[in-house]
Amino acid sequence: MTHTPSQRKPSLNELEHHDAFIARHIGPNDAEIAHMLGVIGYDSLDAMTDAIVPANIKSAQALALPESLTEVEALAKIRAIAGRNQVFRSFIGQGYYGTHTPNVILRNILENPAWYTAYTPYQAEISQGRMEALINFQTMCADLTGMEIANASLLDEATAAAEAMTLAKRSSKSKSNVFFVSENVHPQTLEVLRTRAEPLGIELHVGADAAAADVDSYGVLLQYPDTFGRINDYRALAEAVHARNGLVCVATDLLALTLIAAPGEWGADIVVGNSQRFGVPFGNGGPHAAFMACRDAYKRSMPGRLIGVSVDAEGKPAYRLTLQTREQHIRREKATSNICTAQVLLAVMAGMYAVYHGPEGLTRIARRVHRLATILAGGLRAAGVAVDDGYFDTLHVCGVDAAAIHARASAAGINLRRIDGSRVGISLDETATREDIVAIAGLFGAALDVDALDASVADALPAGLVRTSAFLSHPVFNTHHSEHELLRYMRSLADKDLAMDRTMIPLGSCTMKLNATAEMIPVTWPEFANIHPLAPAEQMQGYRELIDGLEKMLVECTGYDAVSLQPNSGAQGEFAGLLAIRAYHRANGQPQRDICLIPESAHGTNPASAQMCGMQVVVTKCDANGNVDVDDIRAKAEKYSDRLAALMITYPSTHGVFEEDVVAICDAVHRHGGQVYTDGANMNALVGLAKPGKWGSDVSHLNLHKTFCIPHGGGGPGVGPCAVKAHLAPYLPNSFGGDAAAAGGGVGMVSAATWGSASILPISWMYITLMGREGLRRATQVALLNANYIARRLAPHYETLYTGRNGLVAHECILDLRPLKDATGVSAEDVAKRLIDFGFHAPTLSFPVAGTLMVEPTESESLHELDRFIDAMIEIREEIRAIEDGRLERDDNPLVNAPHTATMVAASEWAHAYPRELAAFPLPVLKQQKYWPPVARVDNVHGDKNVFCSCIPVDAFKDEEEATEA
Amino acid sequence: MTHTPSQRKPSLNELEHHDAFIARHIGPNDAEIAHMLGVIGYDSLDAMTDAIVPANIKSAQALALPESLTEVEALAKIRAIAGRNQVFRSFIGQGYYGTHTPNVILRNILENPAWYTAYTPYQAEISQGRMEALINFQTMCADLTGMEIANASLLDEATAAAEAMTLAKRSSKSKSNVFFVSENVHPQTLEVLRTRAEPLGIELHVGADAAAADVDSYGVLLQYPDTFGRINDYRALAEAVHARNGLVCVATDLLALTLIAAPGEWGADIVVGNSQRFGVPFGNGGPHAAFMACRDAYKRSMPGRLIGVSVDAEGKPAYRLTLQTREQHIRREKATSNICTAQVLLAVMAGMYAVYHGPEGLTRIARRVHRLATILAGGLRAAGVAVDDGYFDTLHVCGVDAAAIHARASAAGINLRRIDGSRVGISLDETATREDIVAIAGLFGAALDVDALDASVADALPAGLVRTSAFLSHPVFNTHHSEHELLRYMRSLADKDLAMDRTMIPLGSCTMKLNATAEMIPVTWPEFANIHPLAPAEQMQGYRELIDGLEKMLVECTGYDAVSLQPNSGAQGEFAGLLAIRAYHRANGQPQRDICLIPESAHGTNPASAQMCGMQVVVTKCDANGNVDVDDIRAKAEKYSDRLAALMITYPSTHGVFEEDVVAICDAVHRHGGQVYTDGANMNALVGLAKPGKWGSDVSHLNLHKTFCIPHGGGGPGVGPCAVKAHLAPYLPNSFGGDAAAAGGGVGMVSAATWGSASILPISWMYITLMGREGLRRATQVALLNANYIARRLAPHYETLYTGRNGLVAHECILDLRPLKDATGVSAEDVAKRLIDFGFHAPTLSFPVAGTLMVEPTESESLHELDRFIDAMIEIREEIRAIEDGRLERDDNPLVNAPHTATMVAASEWAHAYPRELAAFPLPVLKQQKYWPPVARVDNVHGDKNVFCSCIPVDAFKDEEEATEA
Repeated sequence: MTHTPSQRKPSLNELEHHDAFIARHIGPNDAEIAHMLGVIGYDSLDAMTDAIVPANIKSAQALALPESLTEVEALAKIRAIAGRNQVFRSFIGQGYYGTHTPNVILRNILENPAWYTAYTPYQAEISQGRMEALINFQTMCADLTGMEIANASLLDEATAAAEAMTLAKRSSKSKSNVFFVSENVHPQTLEVLRTRAEPLGIELHVGADAAAADVDSYGVLLQYPDTFGRINDYRALAEAVHARNGLVCVATDLLALTLIAAPGEWGADIVVGNSQRFGVPFGNGGPHAAFMACRDAYKRSMPGRLIGVSVDAEGKPAYRLTLQTREQHIRREKATSNICTAQVLLAVMAGMYAVYHGPEGLTRIARRVHRLATILAGGLRAAGVAVDDGYFDTLHVCGVDAAAIHARASAAGINLRRIDGSRVGISLDETATREDIVAIAGLFGAALDVDALDASVADALPAGLVRTSAFLSHPVFNTHHSEHELLRYMRSLADKDLAMDRTMIPLGSCTMKLNATAEMIPVTWPEFANIHPLAPAEQMQGYRELIDGLEKMLVECTGYDAVSLQPNSGAQGEFAGLLAIRAYHRANGQPQRDICLIPESAHGTNPASAQMCGMQVVVTKCDANGNVDVDDIRAKAEKYSDRLAALMITYPSTHGVFEEDVVAICDAVHRHGGQVYTDGANMNALVGLAKPGKWGSDVSHLNLHKTFCIPHGGGGPGVGPCAVKAHLAPYLPNSFGGDAAAAGGGVGMVSAATWGSASILPISWMYITLMGREGLRRATQVALLNANYIARRLAPHYETLYTGRNGLVAHECILDLRPLKDATGVSAEDVAKRLIDFGFHAPTLSFPVAGTLMVEPTESESLHELDRFIDAMIEIREEIRAIEDGRLERDDNPLVNAPHTATMVAASEWAHAYPRELAAFPLPVLKQQKYWPPVARVDNVHGDKNVFCSCIPVDAFKDEEEATEA
Repeated sequence: MTHTPSQRKPSLNELEHHDAFIARHIGPNDAEIAHMLGVIGYDSLDAMTDAIVPANIKSAQALALPESLTEVEALAKIRAIAGRNQVFRSFIGQGYYGTHTPNVILRNILENPAWYTAYTPYQAEISQGRMEALINFQTMCADLTGMEIANASLLDEATAAAEAMTLAKRSSKSKSNVFFVSENVHPQTLEVLRTRAEPLGIELHVGADAAAADVDSYGVLLQYPDTFGRINDYRALAEAVHARNGLVCVATDLLALTLIAAPGEWGADIVVGNSQRFGVPFGNGGPHAAFMACRDAYKRSMPGRLIGVSVDAEGKPAYRLTLQTREQHIRREKATSNICTAQVLLAVMAGMYAVYHGPEGLTRIARRVHRLATILAGGLRAAGVAVDDGYFDTLHVCGVDAAAIHARASAAGINLRRIDGSRVGISLDETATREDIVAIAGLFGAALDVDALDASVADALPAGLVRTSAFLSHPVFNTHHSEHELLRYMRSLADKDLAMDRTMIPLGSCTMKLNATAEMIPVTWPEFANIHPLAPAEQMQGYRELIDGLEKMLVECTGYDAVSLQPNSGAQGEFAGLLAIRAYHRANGQPQRDICLIPESAHGTNPASAQMCGMQVVVTKCDANGNVDVDDIRAKAEKYSDRLAALMITYPSTHGVFEEDVVAICDAVHRHGGQVYTDGANMNALVGLAKPGKWGSDVSHLNLHKTFCIPHGGGGPGVGPCAVKAHLAPYLPNSFGGDAAAAGGGVGMVSAATWGSASILPISWMYITLMGREGLRRATQVALLNANYIARRLAPHYETLYTGRNGLVAHECILDLRPLKDATGVSAEDVAKRLIDFGFHAPTLSFPVAGTLMVEPTESESLHELDRFIDAMIEIREEIRAIEDGRLERDDNPLVNAPHTATMVAASEWAHAYPRELAAFPLPVLKQQKYWPPVARVDNVHGDKNVFCSCIPVDAFKDEEEATEA
């Protein structure tokens, strides 16, 4: 590079470079963009955009958002916002408890891109590390609850309870339509159950625990310990429910279960709860990993992700997502649930917390919390304050002047639970100290002599419910107790996986873009992390400012009028959106509108969500170009005109094209009284270019974890805000306590916390603030450019299945492998697995069209990275040609045997018809940097036939070692 | 594990588990300790300790330190301390400038154990990543300074200047003994030069720049821009100095060099400076990476680490530490310097900052800083304030009421440089904003119209010194400019290396113990990171509390009376200690005492430091057990009784044993008027068990980066406090401005900043606070246990070279490979390299005895990890036996060919006489987790013959790829 001083002196304003972040986020630089535009034949990004985006939807104006800020400026701004939150000591409980995230886990998982930038483990071979971490989580949940199987997390305790309600419905032999709910479940759980039960026609019966024995129900939900902290003996109740063919669902607390009898030991059939207190901060309600554990008999209808053990092509144990045929993407409107996200990152943390503390450490923590509670109770009683007996960590204090207590507590920086005028709840937790209980006692006028009370007061666990069974006896929970051991264990797991810190993840429809460090940094600030979701509003002024700001930003990006940030996954957002449509029709006196039109190319969650809203799904066709068939939509809208509730459409389509007729489609649906639901999965092709709320759509969910940079975390957390036009705004989810409900229009809560996963909203706020109006638009344009560059460069080698106007795709392209399969036997899956040998995570496999790969590079990938991917794809195509030509054998070639592990290529024996080097280093550059998959191709059939979802017994590896040695 | 409720109810105090951290830091748990004690034949740690540590040095009492705190408690405590620092906006300059650490570098290097827990890259094959990062740093420094070669960092700018002074002395053809120093170098640089020059007999001549032409000197030191910010044209001066065979040394500023002519372009021979402002926070003075660049002719006598390019056994380019024969560990008292540490972690950061910004980004940053400076100058002048002309970022303001200005500045939270009563310095930097310069102008009564001034004021760089040459043109500085690209580049480098996050690093004498996350967390808090070292004392109350506390802790651990935290490496600590001894003798009227006795087993820095103090080294012998030969010491103390200055001894010895006679040795030295210097390298065997200050030693340096948990950072930063008995306390290094100097006794400054590397002192403070008195003692005991366990388990396979009483070693053991070499040709190096195939970093190779491996496991390694290492060593021994037996060939076996890369074992051809699987997976467990070295055995001879110390031209890899393809 020659370097000559610029002729024109740049101004300070230019030098200040407020838009510096844009070039950090967007991969290609100006010169590269010019080169790439040349490849696809356009002069400018704007010219290319005009050629791709239909004129009738294109925004005439720039986004009304501020200009971009630098990382320093944006962090200073959000720091000031964070400072307006007040971090009290919160002993509110009600499902959320203080916890100490072990520092080694904080830094090396939550703040480590190797974990947070990973994708859902669909590609098992490059996901063994996080699947092992998740199977630890599953084992932990199953062990502690005393159940036979647990899943790899659900979204929150309340929605997990709702899933239990429907799982019980599917599984119970009872004919009843009643689900009995204890009046002592957490209030937010009851709220979500109400929201979810009604559209499904399930009748909720809420009553005192004892009443459960007398009500004819297909199932019951109990809370253990209950929301006021009381540990009740439900043995007889469970027997009574079972006697009537009902199922017993239990919401519980994992830490309590180290000391009290496991629900599985007294008759529970399905157990749910929140693992938050295992090292995951309050975060104003989320994200946390809820769990579901159940009897083995229900595993095939259990909702959510499930990690299982199978074997790989070398016969080694290998993890995979098991029983996927249960899931929404396969079963669509027949799905058991619309769930397609887990809380992986948080489940990994909670599992690691158990790995680090082990059974003895967890028990010690629980004992300490319990001891503090008993000491506090003893001191309160000595001062004449009434406290219920039989508790673990939560004191139910009765007969006090609650208002006065709370006033004194606030003055002392303490939050207690507000129950009613005479009752107060106090939930102690891992973070509670002697000083805390002395301060709390003082609020009630009691003086504590902690050590004296410690010596005198007895434990308060009911004698008949003390746990005696072992848990967490697998070596993984009894080995990694020093920091070095845990650090290395976590690193060894991370190293097995491919995340975005090593390679692009070109997943069509999943938008794996940069999760910038500056966006992540505020998440772990205590001012955001350590706020209890039920803390008084005046302590959350920073959060309110952040949330209001983010809502406005999203409104501006989408053209809608209102946004709810409550849904904590995209599917939840869909559900909320459809609920709003349903409520709107009902409010208009048209409750019969229950038909939801869904094109056959839609995401599987669309029909699953519609089903959850009690809608009937009518599938509409797609034409040969992958576009929705407008005539078919028109015809079906006409046919069901009286009953038409909604059309769900994805835009740009899941086929990766901007369909021309979207405005006409919206018109047609509206003409027949329906509402248009636009799935926001592909918003990354729209931001700054077009707004669904402006072209006729009524509602969308967004995926903040796609378009707005919340990392995928290995398969969650997701955030799925629901955005609506003004006429639907009254029907957005209620906040807790329910303003909208009070106004009569609310549809209830869809998640346990008012703002869902509040603590990760700073990520999207930071992204939008950093990029500014110009940056967001440019990001979208480069996303389109990158996809078209790949499509164009690969055109001589692979057919792109669908294109829009001018032969261009949108932000993703579908490569059709089916002709190659016919000719050579090489499947799309073989290509996906062969990409692992090149160090890549495969594109989306066989969605939306079987036998294809859908590639979405996003704007964050540089030309260098795109070319690296293209080189790999071309080389793979050459290998396929070699099969066509007979230079490689049809049944023994690097594709069908991919991926190749180091143990395969370094084995003394090599029986393949192609050389080892071709297997391992198909491109010379791989000799400089090579990812080795920890397992060979995983056997899916074996895994589904032999479902095993707990930590692998040590013997399994021993056997393998012995086999190796032999 | 069966789990039965405890019979005895544990008390709250037990449950509070204040000592929880001890079990996180110490690897083996109680059961494992009992098992290991059984292996070596003792009932308890105390019994084992009694058998190892001589009774006459053992401490009778427990350490007078508090009990251990939990991570939460300790972090809360240090958070409160941090809160007592006041973070002002500091525009003081004088070698330290505000900077924005790019967030992606902050999180993924500075806060990432893969980088900070790495060791010095002596084992080239497992250190390629950080060596590439360092060669980027070298290239950056050479490019920007316009020199031919640069080293991989020095400790700080002042000591770098001192090294330049001695390098010039060695290299100059002039006979003069005078080193001319510009009066306009930074004051702290001058202080350190004085300290360093005097013992070496170098005469410093300090004067105005112009005088340099007239003084007969062997070399000159100029500052460019000078300490007041002025950019002077030194071309004529350089010619004049050269004409007299003098060398031109220049201290400079890397950011300024993006805009002004490189010193190499106008005659500099040696260039030094601080890279701090390239992304490394102030940190109250350190650690930062200083640099030295010079003409190629001087490379063989340049001090410090130097990364070079060589080739590996497969012919691929590979990095290594080059020209190590220059270094203290080889040349000992003939060494050019005692330097044996670099500031690797900080050099890596600074290099990455340049990689991320690239030449254009750096230039833009520089231009912006300069623009702000010119605008501010324009505004000040318009208000009648005199400002010198010809500057980059620093304004020299004259003729003002400085006291009034500083008072106003303090009130506004701003620090400016305090020069004298009428002059003020203002150094702007990357963090400066429009708001800052408006505020600063306001202090002088000037109102700025920033944009108007921007349009009107001209640049202030001297016209003849505007840079026109290119820099950083290598692709590495022009590729990784998006966050994804940099993130992946950093990860790819980290993945090449083995650090403690993947394996134990059992380095004898280097004590690679846990660097706990909780210890690292405070380092990056702004309250510690963003304090300028010359900020007023009242802003540093937190630091003072931390430093006072740490000094007291170290006094208690060592038995000395006073500690200086100024030395920023162990070798600096040695130098400071010997300086104190020297000053003490002089104060006592015995300036003739200049003999330093040093046993032949000593670290090479000992004689090198003695030489730097002008002492004569007399080497004493060791006996067959590795002990120092007491008779020889007695004899030589006697012989040199009049001139005896000091004995330097390492305890426990570098041979890993507690010598019995240390008290007698101290007595003998004292009897002859000498002082006893105990090298603190092996303090990890002593803390809590014995105190050198109590058994007769007068002074020690400590290695906070060994015993007290500051991470090695890949080869630095180190911290080497100097601890002394009361009679030497007056001779500890001066603080800046020099209290002790004022009192007449000071020896001057040994480092540029008063507290050396202040910002990492929280690490050691946290460690001691977390462990408490019991934890520290137990750590030492388990360090002894772990070493003895390894020695005992390996005894049937390898001979331990030296043992102490009862056949026990101290905290490390030396395995003698020489007999095996004689029998089989297998060298200690072969074993070291073969360990890489097993995934281990080798122990210390051939120190202190050639042909041996010195193993120091530290207390932080679990039994599992120790056994893993032992298994590997036994398996290696079996391989050696196979050579003995003829089952493996003497010239072609897995040892001589180690390490084996993936490209070797996956090659189509395999020409070795042993199977591939044996090469790659010598133990079955490696099939589950395998580290692949990125290069094969590196060719040392080639590297030293073909010294190349810049980024590898891209063609080198291309050639290799083509060779591969052909």
